[in-house]
Amino acid sequence: MRVLGVDPGLTRCGIGVVDGGLGQPLRMVGVGVIRTPAAQETHLRLHTLRSELEQWLHRYQPDAIAVERVFAQANLRSVMGTAQASAVAMLAAAERGLPLAMHTPSEVKAAVTGSGRADKAQVTTMVTRILRLDTRPQPADAADALALAICHVWRGGAQDRLQRAAAAARGGAR
Amino acid sequence: MRVLGVDPGLTRCGIGVVDGGLGQPLRMVGVGVIRTPAAQETHLRLHTLRSELEQWLHRYQPDAIAVERVFAQANLRSVMGTAQASAVAMLAAAERGLPLAMHTPSEVKAAVTGSGRADKAQVTTMVTRILRLDTRPQPADAADALALAICHVWRGGAQDRLQRAAAAARGGAR
Repeated sequence: MRVLGVDPGLTRCGIGVVDGGLGQPLRMVGVGVIRTPAAQETHLRLHTLRSELEQWLHRYQPDAIAVERVFAQANLRSVMGTAQASAVAMLAAAERGLPLAMHTPSEVKAAVTGSGRADKAQVTTMVTRILRLDTRPQPADAADALALAICHVWRGGAQDRLQRAAAAARGGAR
Repeated sequence: MRVLGVDPGLTRCGIGVVDGGLGQPLRMVGVGVIRTPAAQETHLRLHTLRSELEQWLHRYQPDAIAVERVFAQANLRSVMGTAQASAVAMLAAAERGLPLAMHTPSEVKAAVTGSGRADKAQVTTMVTRILRLDTRPQPADAADALALAICHVWRGGAQDRLQRAAAAARGGAR
């Protein structure tokens, strides 16, 4: 299973691609950041983000997309930009018929560090260990995108197991 | 000049198309609402909105798109949906190379009623008068989209006049 994680943003949108499955080691296959110029009008920035994201999807052909669920932030303007950037990733999934999952920041932190309140450094440290990387992924947005993809593989796996167990239980009851 | 106004939303996205120019009466050429099912996942709703908006753009071939600028609302979830729906309209403009303008609700209200604090009923009344319609446009989202388009024609016209005046002044100074 290949998951493309997206940490949405207009200034920096983190992208991380991870291969993995239950009981298999995870492997990083791609990581990076899409940047759009702050001086540009928002609709042109969204268009640039969309074009670059399409290139990532074309190159890596993921089986699923995981996007960070946007929450309240101090700065309303930045919430808007993040919500709009996440819409670009959500549309891309819908257009390709790919499964889309939204994970909250605390779900992602809990998945990779064991604590929903871990800081960015802890998340980066654990992402580096889990993927057995030689260097810490930079910037934090790229590490966050990898963490999202890891979270999705692990949570998706757990959901699959539950679904199989439920299906088996239904089968056994018949 | 033909302007397509968009009052963004996931549950109801108002669309209003107005033809007009300075010193000419405005004319409504289309009005409606795009609805997406609340039970559907957000990324699929965004995809539906995008497809239907494309049909409007294809049918009416506007010269510009005017979108309501999203501001803080009591309900964060609804702000997110509105921001994401507005991203769909913004992307559509960028992809077609159409000029995009964002107008705030108070700019739109002031343009059509003379007061930035007008209520929805006043806006609908003035839209009905300005476009010389036989019936009041319904629902409010549709009337708001027409108000946005009217606001854009008038403000765009004013900006053009200022630019021409500035150009003439520069020419005269040479």
